Amino acid sequence: MQSLARLLEGQHRDLRRRILTLLSERRFAASPGLPREEYRELVLKWCRALAREGLGGLGYPAEFGGQGDPAAGIVAFQTIAFHDLSLVVKFGVQFGLFGGAIANLGTERHHVRYLPKVASLALPGCFAMTETGHGSNVRDIRTTARYDPKSRGFVVHTPNAEDRKDYIGNAALHGRTAVVFAQLEVDGERHGVHALVVPIRDARGNPRPGVRIEDCGDKLGLNGVDNGRIRFDHVRVPRTALLNRFGDVGPDGTYSSPIPDPSKRFFTMLGTLVQGRVSIAAASVSASQSALAIAVRYGLRRRQFGPPGGEEVLLLDYRTHQRRLLPAVAATYAMHFGVEQLIADYARAQTASKDQGKARRQLEGFAAGLKAAATWHATETIQMCREACGGQGYLAVNRLAALKADTEVFTTFEGDNTVLMLLLARSLLTDYRVQFEDMDWVKTSRYLAGRVLSSLQEATPAGAFLDVLFQAVPGRGEGTDVRRREVHLEAFRFREQHLLAGLGRRIKRVLDEGVGSYEAFERHGDHAVAAARAHVDLMLLERFSQVAERARGERLKDTLGTLCDLFALSRIERDRGWFQEHGFLSGGRSKEVVKAVGELCAELRPKAGDLVAAFGIPDAVLAAPITVQG
Amino acid sequence: MQSLARLLEGQHRDLRRRILTLLSERRFAASPGLPREEYRELVLKWCRALAREGLGGLGYPAEFGGQGDPAAGIVAFQTIAFHDLSLVVKFGVQFGLFGGAIANLGTERHHVRYLPKVASLALPGCFAMTETGHGSNVRDIRTTARYDPKSRGFVVHTPNAEDRKDYIGNAALHGRTAVVFAQLEVDGERHGVHALVVPIRDARGNPRPGVRIEDCGDKLGLNGVDNGRIRFDHVRVPRTALLNRFGDVGPDGTYSSPIPDPSKRFFTMLGTLVQGRVSIAAASVSASQSALAIAVRYGLRRRQFGPPGGEEVLLLDYRTHQRRLLPAVAATYAMHFGVEQLIADYARAQTASKDQGKARRQLEGFAAGLKAAATWHATETIQMCREACGGQGYLAVNRLAALKADTEVFTTFEGDNTVLMLLLARSLLTDYRVQFEDMDWVKTSRYLAGRVLSSLQEATPAGAFLDVLFQAVPGRGEGTDVRRREVHLEAFRFREQHLLAGLGRRIKRVLDEGVGSYEAFERHGDHAVAAARAHVDLMLLERFSQVAERARGERLKDTLGTLCDLFALSRIERDRGWFQEHGFLSGGRSKEVVKAVGELCAELRPKAGDLVAAFGIPDAVLAAPITVQG
Repeated sequence: MQSLARLLEGQHRDLRRRILTLLSERRFAASPGLPREEYRELVLKWCRALAREGLGGLGYPAEFGGQGDPAAGIVAFQTIAFHDLSLVVKFGVQFGLFGGAIANLGTERHHVRYLPKVASLALPGCFAMTETGHGSNVRDIRTTARYDPKSRGFVVHTPNAEDRKDYIGNAALHGRTAVVFAQLEVDGERHGVHALVVPIRDARGNPRPGVRIEDCGDKLGLNGVDNGRIRFDHVRVPRTALLNRFGDVGPDGTYSSPIPDPSKRFFTMLGTLVQGRVSIAAASVSASQSALAIAVRYGLRRRQFGPPGGEEVLLLDYRTHQRRLLPAVAATYAMHFGVEQLIADYARAQTASKDQGKARRQLEGFAAGLKAAATWHATETIQMCREACGGQGYLAVNRLAALKADTEVFTTFEGDNTVLMLLLARSLLTDYRVQFEDMDWVKTSRYLAGRVLSSLQEATPAGAFLDVLFQAVPGRGEGTDVRRREVHLEAFRFREQHLLAGLGRRIKRVLDEGVGSYEAFERHGDHAVAAARAHVDLMLLERFSQVAERARGERLKDTLGTLCDLFALSRIERDRGWFQEHGFLSGGRSKEVVKAVGELCAELRPKAGDLVAAFGIPDAVLAAPITVQG
Repeated sequence: MQSLARLLEGQHRDLRRRILTLLSERRFAASPGLPREEYRELVLKWCRALAREGLGGLGYPAEFGGQGDPAAGIVAFQTIAFHDLSLVVKFGVQFGLFGGAIANLGTERHHVRYLPKVASLALPGCFAMTETGHGSNVRDIRTTARYDPKSRGFVVHTPNAEDRKDYIGNAALHGRTAVVFAQLEVDGERHGVHALVVPIRDARGNPRPGVRIEDCGDKLGLNGVDNGRIRFDHVRVPRTALLNRFGDVGPDGTYSSPIPDPSKRFFTMLGTLVQGRVSIAAASVSASQSALAIAVRYGLRRRQFGPPGGEEVLLLDYRTHQRRLLPAVAATYAMHFGVEQLIADYARAQTASKDQGKARRQLEGFAAGLKAAATWHATETIQMCREACGGQGYLAVNRLAALKADTEVFTTFEGDNTVLMLLLARSLLTDYRVQFEDMDWVKTSRYLAGRVLSSLQEATPAGAFLDVLFQAVPGRGEGTDVRRREVHLEAFRFREQHLLAGLGRRIKRVLDEGVGSYEAFERHGDHAVAAARAHVDLMLLERFSQVAERARGERLKDTLGTLCDLFALSRIERDRGWFQEHGFLSGGRSKEVVKAVGELCAELRPKAGDLVAAFGIPDAVLAAPITVQG
């Protein structure tokens, strides 16, 4: 299945191959069980090696030592994620977050001064946003940056213990400089969260005066990354330390910004987080692929139990085993193509000549949603792969332990998943709402219902779905082939639109009772998360189905089609309670879905080895002895 | 809610309190991040301290240094599981597996000679059953114990590399002696798996001649336990080394056994695993309780986001947060009471004057099923608690990292969960089948259907459920209060019986096609696992509902009742796809269930702190700084 492998490699094939060849070298060999301090130094050494190969600044403008290819930067991150995940996080902190903040929030003076040194790792840095008391709630951070007109500089300060910067990668040991997010104050007036470049250590590595640094200590995973806490005691930096693309303070103390609306300005600055979310989504897919490659290959080697007197049976020949692994393989393919599209969308937005409000908001929504979906998927998939490898999967040497422990925090960082899904739901509602200037929720939901109806009518000539839509009639629609792609797409669309319309209607009802909009939204948080998940599923299915249709060659088309069906049906299966409640599935049809998932797994069973081989992870990088012995 | 705490403490209140007081002492303070070798020594030291307190041999007969109270032995294990999980596993290997095998499979000569030294930890030992190539499939292990008539002893031998004993706790460092499971051979004839006491290290701790030991190295968790691999090269032991309760070899080389049927003999010997499964189920409940205590207390302290300008909101006041944590609290209560019953059943069987075939098989089935259910529940709950504590939950110092990593292998050891659920399903089918001597599956399923009908008719005066049973009629039954306990019980019974009957029918169909029974069962493995899970759920609900009804005092009764409803309804919610498919729920009723779960969470929200306080875990043992600060 070379064609499948080629398809997965996508546009940046040469870059991927170059990185994988590099990571296969002996000097990148994993050493599980290394003491923490040695591990941290090894990861720094690996990072330097990657920087020497020019992989650090791929996304930065060419004039500042980069290649001006934002997509390449993320593909590099995604590919490195097949290897040690502390490495990829350290890499991301330095080149993505620290460097990315300078590139995106700074102006030429910062680019010239810092980016080449960031890209070469001559200047190791931190991205100091999160505070102990304010995790995902960046708007309410409490670190201040007060403009002092006398010295014409800023004073960066941490008011209280819980306002210290926390969990900052690269802070405990290696970082020399930090991009610090703080509430900007000029002449007693607050202008919201801004970022400044603040040196935190001197050339000998000691904390600078007024800077107190603490080590976060051992973590569940990612112990090759030196996370730390930073506290500032009236630390002075020059006026030019402010990353001033979206807000500046003149020498006379005048604040100015190209974005007058403070809320819009805040969200624009936070837009720099999008790159991080795209990257984490991509890395999660890589980690899921590593885990599945290990578990499927083990399942194709290991025998256990069997008929009396007969040979023991291969694990992957057990239906229970196929049922666990193969839907996860299919979903991982869906996520892979989804991430590929997200990277392309992101790169397009980065290089667009001007900012397009709605497109940007949609990109941010998709990034938030796919980050959450892909990291939840990774957590679940790696857990399942560990169990599918039994005790062998629990041994450090077989990689799954590290994959599990390291990726586990992905659901939290770069924005907690639940928070991100709520963000996406809000954004989706806004998209619909803007079409109704009076923001009338009832109208919105009627409009949505209308859209559902018309799209169903288009899809089904006789409008047979209409009945099904409003009334659960057992037996109706049973004749439909449960494996028809249009039915899957309709099901996904129906669910997304129904959930969104319902959400809008419910919030409207609460608002009408005089409840504030924050609480109104909160009351239906679960509904909102469900709507957001349904939206991401739909995006993934639309994309996967497109990829499958456009594929060249019958065999490839066929394999992708089967995978796509399995993805769609296993999602419908999982949510079949909802689909039945809302009249999309009758009980009989629902049972057919369950049966079809089992059949698709059996169909894909002979291809299982090829399906994970196509992920293209070299043995030296996968580095799990159970895939070959034990 | 002292009454709730008292209820959870159950029969062995004094023992629990004594252990928790001991574990709260300074010398038991946790030290996350300890290097592996130091950690292993610390755990051994802790184990010795527990042995000195007489906690090692609680379950052994009084005449050999124990207290003859099998339930106390498991309650001790369960209570220690609030503390470090490497400690509890090391404790279990020594006193439960190693000592338990000697107690259950040996006879007086072994008891006299070994049990006092096992209980005092003067003789650290191993339970050497698992082999690299044969994890859960004990029947096919390949280590041999050949009787040599000349020397009147056995020769223990590992034929090939994959037949070595693997993952053996206590083997890498501390074990002096091992109970080794091997295929017994006398005069060329095989008598199946038997256990022998084999010294593996000399007094100075060096491996004895012919014994090769290897360290399993780093694991995802439980790194305080020294797991190792053991290979035997024609190691000789005397004839009396055979644990000969169920099979013996006379000096003249005559094999004899009180159980003539080899298969029955094998399962009787494996019965010793039941204690391990009961213990692991109990420890999983403790670990879930620790995680929930941490996450709920954090949720009651930590504020995040909020209405514009207003105070930030407590995490636990978010519906999404309640929806994640509170159903898990309810299910953990259900598991707690289920485990309590299992321990009592186990203790009764241990002290019963004679072996009662069916009762024993039912106990084994319940132990297998509850072990699987409780360990899956722990994995899921601890993961969710980690996420609910965000980045703080990822720091080693806050305990969730260790809870997660350490318990994660519980789903695999003492029998892989899927394998155990299949075992339970087989046993349940057998229970029904024995009532039909001709083993006619069609009759069996008709009988089951009859049982379902009559039980439903009894429960509902007008037989209204009959319609619902065979035909999904939307709207019917809508009038029923979704929170009526009898409806929950009916739903759980209906599901269990329907799944079992269907499983029987399907297997029968495949058998009729001439397929062998192993494959016939395998083909419906998923269905079998679902049936087994449904059975465990039913056992849990019946027990929980009993406990709630019998509770004294209105407030206690009320709280338990609400928890029991939340457990039942959140399970029905999770499986509402199935319930709708099979006509138990209409779409409208299903939505009511979803709504009711949210309402129950809100109802329990004000009691959340009390509910986790009732688990009775002292702060010094919980040892998570985020429950009080940070």
